[in-house]
Amino acid sequence: MTSSIDREFPAPAGVVSLTTDYGLADGFVAACHGVIARLAPQLRIIDVTHLVPPGDIRRGATVLAQTVPHLPPGVHVAVVDPGVGTNRRAIALATCAGMLVGPDNGLLLDAAEALGGVTGAVELTNPRWLAPRVSATFHGRDVFAPVAARLALGAPLAEAGPAVDPDSLVRLPAPLVRRLPDGFVAEVLTVDHFGNVQLAAPADLLEPLPARVRVRPETGGSGPTGVDGREREAVHGRTFGDAPVGALVAHADSADRVALSVNGGHAAALLAVVPGTLLRVRACGVVGALPDNTDEVSTVES
Amino acid sequence: MTSSIDREFPAPAGVVSLTTDYGLADGFVAACHGVIARLAPQLRIIDVTHLVPPGDIRRGATVLAQTVPHLPPGVHVAVVDPGVGTNRRAIALATCAGMLVGPDNGLLLDAAEALGGVTGAVELTNPRWLAPRVSATFHGRDVFAPVAARLALGAPLAEAGPAVDPDSLVRLPAPLVRRLPDGFVAEVLTVDHFGNVQLAAPADLLEPLPARVRVRPETGGSGPTGVDGREREAVHGRTFGDAPVGALVAHADSADRVALSVNGGHAAALLAVVPGTLLRVRACGVVGALPDNTDEVSTVES
Amino acid sequence: MTSSIDREFPAPAGVVSLTTDYGLADGFVAACHGVIARLAPQLRIIDVTHLVPPGDIRRGATVLAQTVPHLPPGVHVAVVDPGVGTNRRAIALATCAGMLVGPDNGLLLDAAEALGGVTGAVELTNPRWLAPRVSATFHGRDVFAPVAARLALGAPLAEAGPAVDPDSLVRLPAPLVRRLPDGFVAEVLTVDHFGNVQLAAPADLLEPLPARVRVRPETGGSGPTGVDGREREAVHGRTFGDAPVGALVAHADSADRVALSVNGGHAAALLAVVPGTLLRVRACGVVGALPDNTDEVSTVES
Repeated sequence: MTSSIDREFPAPAGVVSLTTDYGLADGFVAACHGVIARLAPQLRIIDVTHLVPPGDIRRGATVLAQTVPHLPPGVHVAVVDPGVGTNRRAIALATCAGMLVGPDNGLLLDAAEALGGVTGAVELTNPRWLAPRVSATFHGRDVFAPVAARLALGAPLAEAGPAVDPDSLVRLPAPLVRRLPDGFVAEVLTVDHFGNVQLAAPADLLEPLPARVRVRPETGGSGPTGVDGREREAVHGRTFGDAPVGALVAHADSADRVALSVNGGHAAALLAVVPGTLLRVRACGVVGALPDNTDEVSTVES
Repeated sequence: MTSSIDREFPAPAGVVSLTTDYGLADGFVAACHGVIARLAPQLRIIDVTHLVPPGDIRRGATVLAQTVPHLPPGVHVAVVDPGVGTNRRAIALATCAGMLVGPDNGLLLDAAEALGGVTGAVELTNPRWLAPRVSATFHGRDVFAPVAARLALGAPLAEAGPAVDPDSLVRLPAPLVRRLPDGFVAEVLTVDHFGNVQLAAPADLLEPLPARVRVRPETGGSGPTGVDGREREAVHGRTFGDAPVGALVAHADSADRVALSVNGGHAAALLAVVPGTLLRVRACGVVGALPDNTDEVSTVES
Repeated sequence: MTSSIDREFPAPAGVVSLTTDYGLADGFVAACHGVIARLAPQLRIIDVTHLVPPGDIRRGATVLAQTVPHLPPGVHVAVVDPGVGTNRRAIALATCAGMLVGPDNGLLLDAAEALGGVTGAVELTNPRWLAPRVSATFHGRDVFAPVAARLALGAPLAEAGPAVDPDSLVRLPAPLVRRLPDGFVAEVLTVDHFGNVQLAAPADLLEPLPARVRVRPETGGSGPTGVDGREREAVHGRTFGDAPVGALVAHADSADRVALSVNGGHAAALLAVVPGTLLRVRACGVVGALPDNTDEVSTVES
């Protein structure tokens, strides 16, 4: 069926996805949809989320990076842009598996990595690609949406503006992750709707640990320390139901990160952690005094 | 116009709808959209809701059942799945008017009834229909979405996995509804965004009642009893505006159930009821002592 | 590409957009999508927002009016309809740039103005255009969605029902705006997701003011007065970043209205204002006593 369509007229070059902190109560998201639909009526638009907390670039970057590998090839627009209208650059990035469009504030780079790495970058300065009159505060509508539509229709990236040195792009600091002799410490990367606590640690750091582990918030992360710093036991399992209802399970999540969940509950509330809190996960049954946390954590490198 | 399109290339076999408890703040919904769009780019996807409270199978089942009759024929995916990754079955059901895909935990059966009843059921075990690597915690993306896309494209249900005896499917307990000499008692089935209280009672139980009725929370439902158990008068009307602003109206709602609403207000808050609370609705003007509630309710049958 | 498609079969007459107070937790929005998709499978549907506060006609009218100019030409359905099922009229309006469908309660007229003004109006009484059985409480599904689908497919407006005199349409009161010698007073029109306070004043009232202005809530608007009535300084800028973090900026927003924002913060919370509160914005550096507020505001005309 697809090939029949392709013979009739070229399929659009994929989809456009949208990830923003615009919320769902205003017309901002619809205005972006409208701008894209006017320029490219055949294009499918996929909303990733519009509930990134206002200005939370790290959260936007994380959701985007973990979602784009599952979307059709296309152009991924992300707008978490507290510097809109200032001299921060508006950019588009090429990768092997799609393009990314948004502000140059670190929001796009994790997703670019997830799509195979940046193969080209431009600054969005071509006025013919933008709205006739660009507002100072709504570049999603006036800059990023029209650029994305044009790219998705196949216009060459180089026409959008001058090339940018990828090494000059603004980057977010990498979250802390460090192996320990009996486990690892890692910052909380994000917390999902269910309260699952996703750590920055890749899943393979959990794999060698035994069937029961101990979890404790530590000082030294980029976010606040957990309230009580209490160490808790968790089942090392595959899914929520591997622990009794109300109990903690440490598992490899669907984005291949270590996550802590509570079967039928909210792990972030139980552990009193937020993104940036450092958590130590180690094998149960280890004897001897705990090492000094401050020293340990001060040597953590990302 | 439609027939002109149909001559050019076969229309997809309907739409795919999605009903989940994934929330809107993560990329989970978009990942499902992406998986479907990659397999079936022409397919329309309709989001029913993603704000089912986490793990609330009854709520998901109710919203789904009341919405599917208004959707185009297609494949309806529902994922409220606290047992994801355990040995609960993943299933697809055929009906006369569409297919349903999700966990075997009772979520799909009310919708199947609304579509005319189950005509076939399979367990989703064919690995070639699933993601190459199925995660333990995100079967929406790795199991249900790819199966739905294939079914919507016309692949035969029997290829998805072995047949399942419909009598073996997990069912939710039916909510209590019972006629009384002067009215009825029924559990609160659900509460909508406006605070309208929908009872499990079909609308025809309200019809014979006079222009004013009395409403009182009772003990004996599957949910908590109303806080005060106070009996209130309600207008027996057609729409919210049939009662004065701030007053209760009992009416047949848009899903043909008895509902209690407050004109310009929030009936669930006024009545202090939640899903599962039992409510008695009876004609005003009845003389004599109320029957003993405990006895009365203990004989309620669904 | 578009013209190639157009030769094959006529494109649908644009999109259908939806603006409601239905929320996102029920199946109401999906039922409207479903009704439209059944009648017009090729039509794109754009959700403007479904989070208008229940019954807040002014808010719905404002979001709709500021969004429709950015949508493709089409049929815009809006349902904020506390009088559903009463004798309020259901209407469709024609404009030069699209059609509007919804209740006759003032919700549609700002958008009609934004689309060039009403060129025709009908009352939706043709039963063949509606659901076979019209519920008393869900006209979005049973009246407005099927009418919009038929209009978007090109059916003539006059078939939907008898013409209505545009002068007979229900109108919302215009929000107060008044020039002052050193600035202006204007009601808060709306507050967005970020807490940006949009005034009813057009942007050109701000333009002549100097680089710093003073802002103070006043008595006399249609909404509550600000809590403290304190006068605050604001930068007269172009964008959020023109003020230091945490500071107020007065600017022309993306809808060409005067707005007050806080860089990295929530202006409505800082100013303690809500829609309907009157705000005075005046040049800094003006000497002399403030005029008496009550007198001043009592002469405000829209």
